[in-house]
This record gives sequence, C-alpha cells and structure tokens, in this order.
Amino acid sequence: MGTGLIGTSLGIALTRAGCEVSLVDTSPTAVALARDLGAGSIASSGGAAPDVVVVAAPPDVAGDVVAAQLGEWPEAVVTDVASVKVAVLERVRALGADDTRYAGSHPMAGRERSGTVAARGDLFDGRAWVVVPHEGSADATVEAVRQLALAAGGTVSVMSPADHDAAVAVVSHVPQLAASLVASRLRDVGEPAVALAGPGLRDVTRIAASDPQLWTQILSGNPGAVRDVLTELQAELAAVVQALDALATTGGVGAREVIARVIAHGNAGHARIPGKHGAAPTSYATVVVLVPDEAGKLARLLHDVGDAGVNLEDLHLEHGLGQPFGLAELAVLPAAAERLAAELQTRGWRLHG
Amino acid sequence: MGTGLIGTSLGIALTRAGCEVSLVDTSPTAVALARDLGAGSIASSGGAAPDVVVVAAPPDVAGDVVAAQLGEWPEAVVTDVASVKVAVLERVRALGADDTRYAGSHPMAGRERSGTVAARGDLFDGRAWVVVPHEGSADATVEAVRQLALAAGGTVSVMSPADHDAAVAVVSHVPQLAASLVASRLRDVGEPAVALAGPGLRDVTRIAASDPQLWTQILSGNPGAVRDVLTELQAELAAVVQALDALATTGGVGAREVIARVIAHGNAGHARIPGKHGAAPTSYATVVVLVPDEAGKLARLLHDVGDAGVNLEDLHLEHGLGQPFGLAELAVLPAAAERLAAELQTRGWRLHG
Repeated sequence: MGTGLIGTSLGIALTRAGCEVSLVDTSPTAVALARDLGAGSIASSGGAAPDVVVVAAPPDVAGDVVAAQLGEWPEAVVTDVASVKVAVLERVRALGADDTRYAGSHPMAGRERSGTVAARGDLFDGRAWVVVPHEGSADATVEAVRQLALAAGGTVSVMSPADHDAAVAVVSHVPQLAASLVASRLRDVGEPAVALAGPGLRDVTRIAASDPQLWTQILSGNPGAVRDVLTELQAELAAVVQALDALATTGGVGAREVIARVIAHGNAGHARIPGKHGAAPTSYATVVVLVPDEAGKLARLLHDVGDAGVNLEDLHLEHGLGQPFGLAELAVLPAAAERLAAELQTRGWRLHG
Repeated sequence: MGTGLIGTSLGIALTRAGCEVSLVDTSPTAVALARDLGAGSIASSGGAAPDVVVVAAPPDVAGDVVAAQLGEWPEAVVTDVASVKVAVLERVRALGADDTRYAGSHPMAGRERSGTVAARGDLFDGRAWVVVPHEGSADATVEAVRQLALAAGGTVSVMSPADHDAAVAVVSHVPQLAASLVASRLRDVGEPAVALAGPGLRDVTRIAASDPQLWTQILSGNPGAVRDVLTELQAELAAVVQALDALATTGGVGAREVIARVIAHGNAGHARIPGKHGAAPTSYATVVVLVPDEAGKLARLLHDVGDAGVNLEDLHLEHGLGQPFGLAELAVLPAAAERLAAELQTRGWRLHG
C-alpha cells in the first residue's frame, strides 16, 4: 500500500527474493511506474488474499490505512514502515482493528531522497530494520514481519513502540531539529560571516537541508518523546546561557565550569556512537593528506592506500575557503597508521596535521 | 610568543617564506622542539628588535601578552591568533598599551589537533585568515599583519572585532555547543537506541569530540555574542517544545506550522553556506555507489571516476549498522552526473539511491 520510495524499493527487493507482490497506490501513475521498475504487479479486485500487507503511507495516515487493511484482509499480517510507532499503534487501536495481526516496522533507509523514481531494490541492504511489535501482537505476526525485513535485506532488531520512539527522538528527531535551529541562525548574517563557514558547521547542518513536509509529519508523530529530550536539552542550554550572561556582565564565578561540563558531556555522549558495522566505537588513527583539486588525484591517493595493503575505515574530504586542494582524512586502524604515512610520503604525498 | 600548534606552524611557514623568526615559549622543551622543526631560532636576550610580534598564547592570556609585547618593543607591530577578538582588544586597552600598533588575527586552522609536535608549515595554506583591526589600529599595522597572513599562506579577509566575534558565534561557537548538547543526550540511553545511530547523527555530533578545556576558553572569551545567538535559538526552540507539547496533549492546532517553519528556516540558512573554494553554493548532483568494504575497492572506484574525466566536488563515505559495504556519495557538477553514472555502471559498479 503506497508506492513511494520505500514501498517501491520494498516491492523490488521482495520480488527479487521470490515473493509475489501486489501494488496499490492512490496515484495510478505512481503504481504503474512502480510496476515498470519491477516492484510487482498492480493489484486487481479479484486477486488472491495477501499473506502480509505492508503499509508504506505517510506517517500521518499510516494508522488509518493499517486499520482498514486489517479489516479488509481478515487473515493477513499487516505492518507499516512509518518512522514513528506509538502514534500509528494508538490510531490502529482507536479504530478497533484486530491488532493481534499488526506489528510495526521502521526500516532506517531512504533519507533525503523520495519518490517512486528514486526506488532501488537494494535500499534496505544491510540497513537497520526495527520490528516494533506491541503487547497484543501474535508471535506469528512478529515472525512474519521479521521474515519480511530479512527478505528485504535489512539487519533486524526488535523494540517496543515506546522504546523505538524514545530512541529515534534521541538519535534522529532531536539531531534534525538541532541542525535546523543552528542553520536557521545563518539566515540573517552577512556574507563575510558565512564565508567563514568551516567543516564543523557543514557537518552540524548537513541534514538541515531535509524536507520540511516529511519532517513535520515525523516530528508531529512523536511529540511526547521529542519534547522530553528537548526539555532536557533546554535545561542544559539555559545553564549555558546563564553562564555566558554572567561572564558577559559580571565576570561569572563558576561559569566556566558549567561550560566545560557541557562540552565534556558531549564528549561522553559522542563516544557512545557505534563505529561502522555496528561494532563498539574504535579510536581510529587519522592520516591527513593534501590532495590537489584535480581529476584523478584522489583516485591515485586511494590507489596508493590500497597498494599499501591498508583498509580505510573512514574517509572524509574537506575543502576550506578558497583553497586549490582538499584535505583527505584517512581513518585507519592505529596499528596501520605509521606504515601508511611512511608509504604515502615515499610515494610523494604531502601529509598534513 | 607561544610555540604550540599555531605558533610553531606559523614559524615554519614564515621561515620558509624567508622571514627571520625568533621563538619564545614558557616551556623550554616546546621552544626547543619548535626550533628543531624548523620554526626559527630561540630568542636570545641580546637579539635584534622584531618588526612583528605574533602572540600565539591561549585566548584567556592573549591580551596580557599582547600588552606586554607592545610595551617591550616600542617599534613593533603586534598581533595575536586567538579565536575571539573583542575580549583580547578590551584587555589590551585596559592595560593602557599603545594599541595603534595592535591588530588581531584569526587564522581558521588547526581544529581538533594541538601541540608543538602537530605543527606543519602548510597549516594555513588556503585557509581563511581574518585580520581584525580596531578603530585605533594604524594603517601600517593592518598592512603588516595582512602581509604576515599572506606570507603564511592564508586567504585574508578583514573584519572588525565585534563583527568577527558575532560571525564566529554563528558559524563556529553555537554549532559546537549544539553538537555537544545533542551528543550529551546519548549518555543515558540504552545500547539498542544508540545502535540506531545513522549518518545524520554522526554528522551533527562529530565536533562534540572536541577538547573541553580549549572550548571553555573560546566560549568564555566570546560570551556576549554567543549568548545573543543562543537566545534567538532558545526562543525558536521554546516554540517547538510548546508546539510538540500541544500535539502530545491537546491535538495542537497550528502546532504543525511552527515545526514546518523551523525546518524551512533551517533549509534557508543551510542554503547560504558557501561551497568549496569559497564560491557561491552550487547544487551538486550526487551519484551513490555501493563499495564493498575491502582494501582497494574505494581506490578502484575513484580511479574509475578519474578515468571518466569527471572531477569530484565532494565525497562522503557512509557506513550503516552491520553492513559489509559502504555507500560512497560522489558529488559532481550536475552536467556530469548522468555520464558518470553510466560510466560506472559500465564498469560494473552498483549504483544506489
């Protein structure tokens, strides 16, 4: 139900996995395009009853569609893919549907792109897919949704609706708002000020380019959990403002301690973010290389890294104001860093930092 | 004066540019190391009077050292490199020094690394270097500092102390606090929640790993401007919290509009951030490629990009939870995107998104 980016991508993935997929959308154009992309066949009124219905509708209507589908197909398991889960469940319950056959899903994929035409069968490959049953979900329901997520290529975990919404408030919804609020401050400053923007600002505000309509639906669908996290943030922010105000006006005894604590708390929270592959955080060593801004130079650098037999853990390319080259930050396992630096210098690269 | 990262790097750059550099530091070890790195000679008591003195001391003592140097060398131009400028100037004035020979500097380089041993002569190459004169700075003073910045390799702009501090509050100090405050929220959530961390959270919080001591000095040195920006942010944040609270409790008439406006304001602010080379923002097209997580694969990809004759404008490598490959986002000029995608597919790469 719904052949946007997520629905169509899921159709392609499940069709490839050997499932028979019927497509429904309010837009005849979208559903025809989804079919042409290999997402399945267009549902017909005389078709067979589905085993599983996936509701890939916007967050603000997902609950209604789930309830309607539970009613229409009395034997089917129904899931949805909205990025908020308590609100959808509450709506399903309010409508009196048979919720033993419902368990939610949140495939964490597809940010910053949308629409049927952007669909890909590999959208879920290796991405987190949270299966979100409620207390009333039947075991068979949960298992069917889990199998669906695995068939689509997702990496499956299971959480309750409240835990899910609290988690995404912290790791996704509040970061989005923070990025938007920081970027918002740039609206009214002069050109010379924005010209001083560096890589830190770029990183903090990258997701501030996200779609307002989609994010309004997401944030409106998780108001309690987002509010609770923001309230904590507000308290810490108010302490910072008070400390800065004391420093600006009276010299501020104890104010520096407040600021130092906020930065240190940020260190502690940041250290909890998992590294790649979902592993525990690893401290990588960084080798920074000056790369002339010419076609092929970065390729040659990474070719040389590969030749050295060193596996890149992460790579970040940084461009500053008015500079004719980039800084490539190569993150590697600490044991490999010294050897890599020596190899690169031997090959004529200029290291930096 | 001061042979940490910035002072030593500047010494190396200026020595290479043909200047005669005398080094001073409170630490005999640091100054000897700086000399050994090619930053200049250790200052002796009978040495010649300097033309220019650069104070590369921590922000909280820079003003005192500038004033002392203005007194010690009655003919010399004095500048400092602290990342806050009003506080330094106020201190210089409070101490009654001859401030016609003082103009501040802010070379925007060296984040996230520190110490003499990290110094590099190319640290300032192509980086923004803001020269910050005050109303009393003599023309010859400003010109001497400008020439110094150019000799060090910087890209020079000129701002007043108040404009500088207001600008860095928006583009650097408030983003740092926002990243720290968002990361701080991760301290107390469970492992399953942090396991859902995606590239958005990683970007927003990357600079939350910064040094608390340094950032306490920086923020404490710019309390008024940072407070003013934070106060605006607080007002917008309070409106969001109120809207979410209304949605959580009463259904919230008008609340969605508040949220949509904040995200849209973030879009507008984000669009003002310059692209690389300080040019006006360009909308690049993105080609996303699946890269197996094996040594040499990314090199081969970028080699193929170079072979296609396409110049990479930006590159971002993304790893998700538990996935055995990365997603390489290749940003290129829109005119080149289609050709690049076709070339890469011809060479066997799987595109994504």
